[in-house]
Amino acid sequence: MAKRSELGVTPQSEDFSAWYNELVLKAELADRGPVRGTMVLRPYGYRLWELVQAELDGRIKATGHENAYFPMLIPESHLRREAEHVEGFAPELAVVTHAGGHDLEEPLVVRPTSETVIGELFARWISSYRDLPLLMNQWANVVRWELRPRLLLRTTEFLWQEGHTAHASAEEAAAEVLTATRFYEEVARDCAAISVITGDKTPRERFAGADRTVTLEAMMRDGRALQAGTSHDLGTNFARAFDIDFTNAEGAVELCHTTSWGMSSRLIGGIVMAHGDDSGLVLPPVLAPFQVVVVPIGREGELAGVLEAARSLALDLAAAGIRVKVDERDHVSPGFKFNEWELRGVPVRIELGPRDLAASKATVAERLAQGREQVPLADVVPDMPARLDRIQQALLERSKRFREERTFSVESWGGLVEAVSVGFASALHCGTEECERRIQDETTATPRCIPWDAPEETGPCAACGKPSAYGRRVIFARAY
Amino acid sequence: MAKRSELGVTPQSEDFSAWYNELVLKAELADRGPVRGTMVLRPYGYRLWELVQAELDGRIKATGHENAYFPMLIPESHLRREAEHVEGFAPELAVVTHAGGHDLEEPLVVRPTSETVIGELFARWISSYRDLPLLMNQWANVVRWELRPRLLLRTTEFLWQEGHTAHASAEEAAAEVLTATRFYEEVARDCAAISVITGDKTPRERFAGADRTVTLEAMMRDGRALQAGTSHDLGTNFARAFDIDFTNAEGAVELCHTTSWGMSSRLIGGIVMAHGDDSGLVLPPVLAPFQVVVVPIGREGELAGVLEAARSLALDLAAAGIRVKVDERDHVSPGFKFNEWELRGVPVRIELGPRDLAASKATVAERLAQGREQVPLADVVPDMPARLDRIQQALLERSKRFREERTFSVESWGGLVEAVSVGFASALHCGTEECERRIQDETTATPRCIPWDAPEETGPCAACGKPSAYGRRVIFARAY
Repeated sequence: MAKRSELGVTPQSEDFSAWYNELVLKAELADRGPVRGTMVLRPYGYRLWELVQAELDGRIKATGHENAYFPMLIPESHLRREAEHVEGFAPELAVVTHAGGHDLEEPLVVRPTSETVIGELFARWISSYRDLPLLMNQWANVVRWELRPRLLLRTTEFLWQEGHTAHASAEEAAAEVLTATRFYEEVARDCAAISVITGDKTPRERFAGADRTVTLEAMMRDGRALQAGTSHDLGTNFARAFDIDFTNAEGAVELCHTTSWGMSSRLIGGIVMAHGDDSGLVLPPVLAPFQVVVVPIGREGELAGVLEAARSLALDLAAAGIRVKVDERDHVSPGFKFNEWELRGVPVRIELGPRDLAASKATVAERLAQGREQVPLADVVPDMPARLDRIQQALLERSKRFREERTFSVESWGGLVEAVSVGFASALHCGTEECERRIQDETTATPRCIPWDAPEETGPCAACGKPSAYGRRVIFARAY
Repeated sequence: MAKRSELGVTPQSEDFSAWYNELVLKAELADRGPVRGTMVLRPYGYRLWELVQAELDGRIKATGHENAYFPMLIPESHLRREAEHVEGFAPELAVVTHAGGHDLEEPLVVRPTSETVIGELFARWISSYRDLPLLMNQWANVVRWELRPRLLLRTTEFLWQEGHTAHASAEEAAAEVLTATRFYEEVARDCAAISVITGDKTPRERFAGADRTVTLEAMMRDGRALQAGTSHDLGTNFARAFDIDFTNAEGAVELCHTTSWGMSSRLIGGIVMAHGDDSGLVLPPVLAPFQVVVVPIGREGELAGVLEAARSLALDLAAAGIRVKVDERDHVSPGFKFNEWELRGVPVRIELGPRDLAASKATVAERLAQGREQVPLADVVPDMPARLDRIQQALLERSKRFREERTFSVESWGGLVEAVSVGFASALHCGTEECERRIQDETTATPRCIPWDAPEETGPCAACGKPSAYGRRVIFARAY
């Protein structure tokens, strides 16, 4: 018989990093691949990703984008065409030098991102203003060699979607960046129940080759930041490098303005760290692989009747559109099951035993609530959608409150150092690279974003005292 | 203004290969990537693939399998653990030798298929009979270096799903191979409208490392065969190589029996070649990205009213669950649109003009029917599901008839040679590798399968006269 202790994890408060690694493995979200830094998404983790995908894909399509698929192998020379881009990605590349039994004449890079290969195709497909805007998205794996890999968060291979668009004007490209940012915010907030801060990256933190990068920054329960999604205005940088141009209505040839934007499987790691606690995962109902688990309880003679009732309840829940599982295992105890589904973050557990059935009731326990409730059996299904909604809202509110409580307006070096040791620092900043670098060297914190919703403000840089840039405060934090 | 001639393709009867290549490009299903042999699935082709995926994924999940994702990079040494497997795949491998700015200590292979990496994980996850069966599937890209690449059919990178399962007994593994074969048959027949022959591969044609390979063979309109999907019984070969074992209920340790099975994006090429004609693609309604296209017709002053009616009709069709597009382009003529949607294989075209509207009618044309029909506007939507069903059925029947008419029972070398020059040869065969090889060397035909539904029969080998093996006839054909 499996033991409860198999399910224990190091308390979050004691060692956040150990808690995270143990939890990801024990909850069976992911595992390590044979090559260092690679990851396996196990069915529970992959199902979460599928639910993220469905939510995101619907929004991507609803805003006029079409899915396509581009090759993973890119000639090394392609990557070099955009100077900043190759400089940013060169240290992380995996390179195929040998294929089909022969050394290749030109090495091929495994895509770390696809601007360069998509750029070449866009140039082939676009000739007239009638071909614009070109709005594409791909779901794909990418490879970036990681020196300090971390399950789900930093792995040499990960899954993501990458949107790539080309437009006739700078204004349209700018609007596209906002469109992508908007649906990323929706997925983070309304699906993952994570409250994010949206804003611009400082120049040093931008995507390699972008004129502008917009980011969504979430706070994990150790106070660190996680970038949940980014959208890049690439200006005409890639259009120039790849000859993506078009003939306008007046017959003149112009460069396109392009954008790219991505959200990845690291969001799953973000969900773990934004909501989890000492007992394990806490999954938002909208993305939970199982929203409800039913645990039948009873001795040998009673179990058949209980099982039948449990299955019937599950069918009714499923018919109401709820993802439900009946845990029918007979070699582990109900107590073990409670702990396991708690560890795996299922929002609602229903216990069903002979006494419940005799009273036409079910025992309902919520992942984050104290104790259990007796609920009339007839109410369980009709009440469930509202219960799941309430849980989802409460999680989002908790996430927002947590971030707000751990975000500190700081005016001095000391204040900044203290703030980033437990959360986010909101600081005026001079905007110089030297000052950014010094903060990073001494605290490991980086500017996460210049929040859009921050009020206009100027004054001395909290770090160095020089006059502030950006006209508003910047969020600094240590980040994943 | 675009010209009709842009849409012309070489007639199928004149040069099948040119017809295919031109059509795939002009219908915008796919394009070539910058690296030789790589492919881009354009939105129209990718949408087809998404529809295949949805059909297949639903069936995979309904039979108890769970999706997961395994790393793409595999240590070269892993591949060598199963001797036949590495021998089969070695010539097609792409190898990463350099990553993160350094030469790797051990080269990494880009997965050509994932038995070896999944084998290692299965060994980690399986310990007791309670962990079995383990039923997994992954949607992924794979790389196999192709010397003679061909869009959609043979590309160095392609998309597929690969199922991988582990079982406690040989019987369960054998049943799993049949389960996978069954849903592949359903997808080929009920979705792609392609009639297939199901049977076993001869030993020489089996998957590298398999004890048994079951295949679905479809006939293209040039009489050649295309393998639409395969399921492999791997016996204990991979279990032995990767230590995939379990403790049975009696406490003894046994090897697992494993299977794998796959269907890939080459099915899209199969759909092109199984149904297409001189005018272009002919898409089965179940998988057509657009099942209906509405072309509004009218002069400048009339067009606003026609457009409104077309959009309203499209909304009604969409509400009835039909995938519909209104072609609102104003820079190409209705005639160009007719030809283009014909080229792109849309099953039903609706033309809507002022005269149609005045008579409360619509003009309906089916992709494979001669002429057009006037249909009362009020009937268009309610009749459409049955119309699409009828088209789907007719396509499947045509595919079956075509294959049957081009399959010849042959008793001699001359008969075999003649049959495989236009279609399938159904022949008794000695089952020796030398004879298989001679047939391949002299005709390029290979044994496609030993059909399950062939009656029991023995006699002399059609090629060499030696006594037949397998107890039934074998299908020989040239193949893609």
